[in-house]
Amino acid sequence: MADMKVYFDHNATTPLHPEVKKEMIAAMEMFGNPSSMHAYGREARANVEASRRKVAEFIGAHDEEIIFVGSGSEANNTVLSLFVCATNQCVGGCGMRSTIITTRIEHPCVLETAECLAHRGAHVKYLDVDRYGKIDLDQLQGMLGDDVGLVSVMMANNEIGTLQDIEAITKMVHASGAYMHTDAVQAVGKVPVDVRRLGVDFLTISGHKIYGPKGVGALFVKKGVSYCPLIRGGHQERGRRAGTENTLGILGLGRAVEMRALEMTEEHNRMVQLKTALKEGIEARIDDISINGHPTDSLAGTLNVSFEGVEGEAVLLYLDLEGIAVSTGSACASGSLDPSHVLLATGVDAERAHGSIRFSMGRESTMQEVDYLLDVLPGTINKIRNMSTAYIKGGVHAASR
Amino acid sequence: MADMKVYFDHNATTPLHPEVKKEMIAAMEMFGNPSSMHAYGREARANVEASRRKVAEFIGAHDEEIIFVGSGSEANNTVLSLFVCATNQCVGGCGMRSTIITTRIEHPCVLETAECLAHRGAHVKYLDVDRYGKIDLDQLQGMLGDDVGLVSVMMANNEIGTLQDIEAITKMVHASGAYMHTDAVQAVGKVPVDVRRLGVDFLTISGHKIYGPKGVGALFVKKGVSYCPLIRGGHQERGRRAGTENTLGILGLGRAVEMRALEMTEEHNRMVQLKTALKEGIEARIDDISINGHPTDSLAGTLNVSFEGVEGEAVLLYLDLEGIAVSTGSACASGSLDPSHVLLATGVDAERAHGSIRFSMGRESTMQEVDYLLDVLPGTINKIRNMSTAYIKGGVHAASR
Repeated sequence: MADMKVYFDHNATTPLHPEVKKEMIAAMEMFGNPSSMHAYGREARANVEASRRKVAEFIGAHDEEIIFVGSGSEANNTVLSLFVCATNQCVGGCGMRSTIITTRIEHPCVLETAECLAHRGAHVKYLDVDRYGKIDLDQLQGMLGDDVGLVSVMMANNEIGTLQDIEAITKMVHASGAYMHTDAVQAVGKVPVDVRRLGVDFLTISGHKIYGPKGVGALFVKKGVSYCPLIRGGHQERGRRAGTENTLGILGLGRAVEMRALEMTEEHNRMVQLKTALKEGIEARIDDISINGHPTDSLAGTLNVSFEGVEGEAVLLYLDLEGIAVSTGSACASGSLDPSHVLLATGVDAERAHGSIRFSMGRESTMQEVDYLLDVLPGTINKIRNMSTAYIKGGVHAASR
Repeated sequence: MADMKVYFDHNATTPLHPEVKKEMIAAMEMFGNPSSMHAYGREARANVEASRRKVAEFIGAHDEEIIFVGSGSEANNTVLSLFVCATNQCVGGCGMRSTIITTRIEHPCVLETAECLAHRGAHVKYLDVDRYGKIDLDQLQGMLGDDVGLVSVMMANNEIGTLQDIEAITKMVHASGAYMHTDAVQAVGKVPVDVRRLGVDFLTISGHKIYGPKGVGALFVKKGVSYCPLIRGGHQERGRRAGTENTLGILGLGRAVEMRALEMTEEHNRMVQLKTALKEGIEARIDDISINGHPTDSLAGTLNVSFEGVEGEAVLLYLDLEGIAVSTGSACASGSLDPSHVLLATGVDAERAHGSIRFSMGRESTMQEVDYLLDVLPGTINKIRNMSTAYIKGGVHAASR
């Protein structure tokens, strides 16, 4: 039986913040359609707009630059799909350039959309990353040109936590005349994000990664930038995203960013301590491991570790029996037998990638939880390694550590 | 000051059913990502699948034929957009025929998507409707042919409540080799809907029209029918709709359809009485009116009335001051100065269309509320007519009644 419950999978999703719960429960009485002209509708509209102001303020945007959507995935699909309009003379008439540059470590909702667009006339180029998951600005410079319409680079990687220098990237992208998008789903609420400082044209936010509800996200679209909707047929969100507003979700997201503004700085310092303790504890207790991701430019709460000679899924399931929730790479790719595309892109080999675990901590994580994990983990890894015929301590794989 | 609060705008949106509220509040503790393999994830997954079973059962579908989405608009956009894949050799490789037939009285999320697709290589044909809002099966027969990939006809119209004979339409459509979609957002939960009896390939459901939450809907896709996602990049919903599942919304929708199954039959009889009383009361008390929509094949809770010599928006606002919430046509078109496209399609002239009000009742509506409305409405209409220079009792417009 598990002695303790430890949730170290905050990059997959987070529990609702108690203040978000309160906000959403109170909002259940407010049922009007924000598009309705009567009192019920006006009340809902006022609340949705108040939430928009909170989100805008949190990232330094104007209210009208925030579009509420159903998920980070929808936001990312929307931005990339603007380039279908260009090639297909969509009614939106965006008229953009049809080459898209992105990285090999994006979330599947960017990579698969890019792949789809490549079948539909767009040209897609992929940036490599170094062993820490950082892109190479020189490679980007070499790819930029008159044909490039959009560059999409995620701000913080979901699997290894590596942060990119979006401000520097955006400057280069804009100098070439292209638009800049960043999937900031894992960054917003964890590191400071100011769209004016970053300079980006599009930025993606998700509610459930920051103690808000699932089923809601926000897309920042800089004023004046061409746009056409992915979901059409209503004047909602100034005609930019049809469908009756998810009022509960939107209010929850607004409250979530308000709480992030209050809590994130202090939390960040605590996260650094927890991650350091976890990393040093694993290094001290377990042989033949390697740490993935950038040593400093990385999310404070995210630690990705490869354990030689184990299957990550086995580790996950054994830890689950001990009450500890972790993940092997991204939740969105779970169940897949392919090794993490992110780790492969950083040069980790397929076997080691298969033995990788992501620990992602959050606002309620404690040093006691780290200690409990450090008590349980060495025995778990040993047990799995002992069952495996492939693992020889200090052997072939360990040598490449 | 208003004596009473009367919400007669259930076609725009509905309050959460108390049981849905309970379900959603309880579910706030269940925060796992359904894609996660650990206990938190498995719990969320089990609950999402239970909800899928409820929705499937309610409309006579198999579980795997239900895709949860963010709204009815998203579902409708998704179905129509399958035909972009065909013309653009999308990675999904649907290979369908590129003519779409729809009606002039669909929701804007169908009409505007169709318009967009027409700019992208699809061919769109529009079915006319008669004065009651019914399509003509002979006209449909004449349009069907080898080129037609999809026919999309809404089951119940949101503005006038008219029901179409989807079963008969589907038979004709299938005989021609095309696929059949029905936007059943206003029908599901109000009239019996069985996808096997109807025979449709695609059917759209929205949560917030049936006392469930906003921000969630479901799309029925018949087993074996070609499909490619509108939102890509995750294995969620069997790879058919990316993005972390809106667990609270999905559980709310599941509970909402369960309650519909229990309550809709008895409620229907009560709705018929309320609508009859409202209709006869208006006819007895107010001159120069006309009823829009089909006299019998119509939603029991929906009554659309044109009042000569008034602006619908003025009626709405005056009634709002009396605590009564109604609408002028669809909430999704509110704020628009154009007369209702639905009423125009039924042959109502622009002036009369501008003077039309939709009363839509729901599960908590009472005869006391109808009586209160009937007390207030004649004076309201008179006041507005007296302010108008255009209205002459029994005059030009009234003559066309």
